[in-house]
Amino acid sequence: MHRFNLSSYSNRGMGLEDDINATNKYYLDNDIAVIYKKPTAITIAKAEYPNNNAIIKEGYFKTPSTTDYNGIYKGKYIDFEAKETKSHTSFPISNIHAHQIKHLDRIVSHGGIGFIIVRFSSLNETYVLFQKDLKDFLTNNDRKSIPYDYFKEKGYLINIKYAPRLNYLEVIDKYGGIYEKTKS
Amino acid sequence: MHRFNLSSYSNRGMGLEDDINATNKYYLDNDIAVIYKKPTAITIAKAEYPNNNAIIKEGYFKTPSTTDYNGIYKGKYIDFEAKETKSHTSFPISNIHAHQIKHLDRIVSHGGIGFIIVRFSSLNETYVLFQKDLKDFLTNNDRKSIPYDYFKEKGYLINIKYAPRLNYLEVIDKYGGIYEKTKS
Repeated sequence: MHRFNLSSYSNRGMGLEDDINATNKYYLDNDIAVIYKKPTAITIAKAEYPNNNAIIKEGYFKTPSTTDYNGIYKGKYIDFEAKETKSHTSFPISNIHAHQIKHLDRIVSHGGIGFIIVRFSSLNETYVLFQKDLKDFLTNNDRKSIPYDYFKEKGYLINIKYAPRLNYLEVIDKYGGIYEKTKS
Repeated sequence: MHRFNLSSYSNRGMGLEDDINATNKYYLDNDIAVIYKKPTAITIAKAEYPNNNAIIKEGYFKTPSTTDYNGIYKGKYIDFEAKETKSHTSFPISNIHAHQIKHLDRIVSHGGIGFIIVRFSSLNETYVLFQKDLKDFLTNNDRKSIPYDYFKEKGYLINIKYAPRLNYLEVIDKYGGIYEKTKS
């Protein structure tokens, strides 16, 4: 039986999702945080039940209502979307659905920590951009993409190492979307 | 095209899931909380891409790793599983997977609010049972089901009304898993 990962369908590259899943597993195994990727939403049109086992025979991918990842860290609700781009100059905003951005706005207004993780794969750089800075950009710009320089200025580069592979909670610890950024 | 709801496959009855979804929509629309049901996890074995639209041609349901519902309320991470039983004497523990119970334990140890919602559909009664009381029962009993009386004693009956249909956050507000229960 040929199996493939859902990611091959979505725009997201495999690398980033793998890194985040491995990192979340590390957080879970070491009792640091409980953060999971949500399953991909599917509409089932046809199913069969041979021997009482359900087999989906026709299904379609739904547009997601929320972000892909959420969980808890140090008592705080954490919520984010992760995307990769091959561009080394900008991140196309179309990679994130409007209702996902709305969702992140809601999360932050309810006291959670919301952000996006964006990897510029050609540069091998991965950034956390907090919801506040994402919203600031979208409010003040009509552009269809966020320049790489904006990530350098407002985002936080995530360290890549052996374990955890992509320690994004280090960024949350330091900046958490609570403090104003004071980069010079 | 014939469409059916995933719930017709799972053990969960339609009624409770519908009530919770309607309630969560009410919470969202009224900016009270942001709580969603996670999509059902599927393994895709075969897919086709006519005109660049993905169609799943063979898929299977996975055993869930976490609970079905999570989100944020008053800055607190909320996490629960919801199940219905036709029995009016007890709730079979097999309705909840062992790793879902482990997941709820983790959530609470990280500062979140974890619980199960159980409906005794023949009695038309729906209870919140906090993780602490669920764990107490499982630690102190070898039984394969939790008696109805335990829900009456340790659980909290949820009010059913027009909107929101199943106001479980009222229970969280009052008891939140933080205070000890002081029922006489």
